[in-house]
Amino acid sequence: MALSLQADTVTAAVLIIGDEILSGRTQDQNGNYIARYLAAVGIELLEIRVVPDIEDEIVAAVDALRHRYTYVFTTGGIGSTHDDITADAMGRALGVEVLEDPRAIAMLLERLRPDQLNDARRRMARIPKGAELIENSVSKAPGFMIGNVIVMAGIPMVMQAMLDAVAPRLKCGARVLVETVAAGAIPEGRYSEGLAAIAAAEPEVSIGSYPQFSSEGVRNEIVLRARDAARLAAAAHSVRGLLAELSSDRALG
Amino acid sequence: MALSLQADTVTAAVLIIGDEILSGRTQDQNGNYIARYLAAVGIELLEIRVVPDIEDEIVAAVDALRHRYTYVFTTGGIGSTHDDITADAMGRALGVEVLEDPRAIAMLLERLRPDQLNDARRRMARIPKGAELIENSVSKAPGFMIGNVIVMAGIPMVMQAMLDAVAPRLKCGARVLVETVAAGAIPEGRYSEGLAAIAAAEPEVSIGSYPQFSSEGVRNEIVLRARDAARLAAAAHSVRGLLAELSSDRALG
Repeated sequence: MALSLQADTVTAAVLIIGDEILSGRTQDQNGNYIARYLAAVGIELLEIRVVPDIEDEIVAAVDALRHRYTYVFTTGGIGSTHDDITADAMGRALGVEVLEDPRAIAMLLERLRPDQLNDARRRMARIPKGAELIENSVSKAPGFMIGNVIVMAGIPMVMQAMLDAVAPRLKCGARVLVETVAAGAIPEGRYSEGLAAIAAAEPEVSIGSYPQFSSEGVRNEIVLRARDAARLAAAAHSVRGLLAELSSDRALG
Repeated sequence: MALSLQADTVTAAVLIIGDEILSGRTQDQNGNYIARYLAAVGIELLEIRVVPDIEDEIVAAVDALRHRYTYVFTTGGIGSTHDDITADAMGRALGVEVLEDPRAIAMLLERLRPDQLNDARRRMARIPKGAELIENSVSKAPGFMIGNVIVMAGIPMVMQAMLDAVAPRLKCGARVLVETVAAGAIPEGRYSEGLAAIAAAEPEVSIGSYPQFSSEGVRNEIVLRARDAARLAAAAHSVRGLLAELSSDRALG
């Protein structure tokens, strides 16, 4: 059950642009990294989408997301090759021109000699008009932020550097507190009813149950999330009480 | 650049239902597994979405996706706890009742004694009317297929068993052939222009360039995808020729 949003909740979506994720060639790591990062700074991630390297699809997705969430974080498609079309897609989505940006050229020249700055590499300096640049301490070619859309590289090491660079400019909300209670081998089906009662009694606490199957059988975890520490502690106490009661009464199966 | 679709292309989206992915607690594995599986059977995966455990969000996403793609594969939210709301969401999205299904009860009783079948466990037998069940060889509680929507568990081992069970019932298309050419340490910015020319000359071949940063520096790979083996081979030959030419001319940087 998702946590209810408050008026001051800062929300986000992640838009992953990349055929290589959809073909299965690459296991995306950026979504999970950004999810953990945003949780740590008090931004609630409410959606992730993966779309192919097709301009119409990117434009449609960024348009759907930027009107719904405080921020949209995109990854992928800002390199120098013909399949890097994110900057143009963002320009189209936001209705602004995409031009070679002298600030971005200056950044590229920190790493390249002037004679190495060919047309393909100049593509990495094409930035929608009005965007703020996001520094890239790894390989210099910048990301950018335009409106509430934060455009980052797909390579995890570069994306992570850009996220560090842009994070201080973002508004953040109250951090969600998390507590995990191990239910061990007690079957979900035995504690479901008691857990539902606790969840109903604690509407400000989001409670989820996560079974893991392994060669040793099922091991369950109950994860509680809340913005209020006292409510979180009370709900976790109730969950521990429920599990203790069930543990002392194993014969029921 | 994504592969152009043909009239007989079978397409799909994956809808991942789960707060635990959006909070960053869990790194999703199902999206990548399904992506590789679908590629192997000739179904083109065109979108992945991750949404929270909120009924309205699930209904909106499945509605958007089921009208666009041949199939929608969902994962998550079909267990016995209060946060498992996928069956109800699917019933609402498809406008059918969700009822306890005697076939699903029979499956649960393969693993549980009748006295263990409490109300919470009976929830796992609630299936939208008209759905076909999908067998679960791991833990018995079934998934289901209703219309073009395939509803599976979130636990990877269970999801994988369900995918094996449902795959023979799906229509499949021509498998996409893939060839990877290692570009090694040749910088992307040096081959971008040549690669764009090859991509333009081979419109039936999708060509992507994927840099990897590591402690040893950048290593690039060029991935070619096509349905036609001859066109794929021709394009890969051109790419190898381009790289060989650049390798013999390293001084330009």
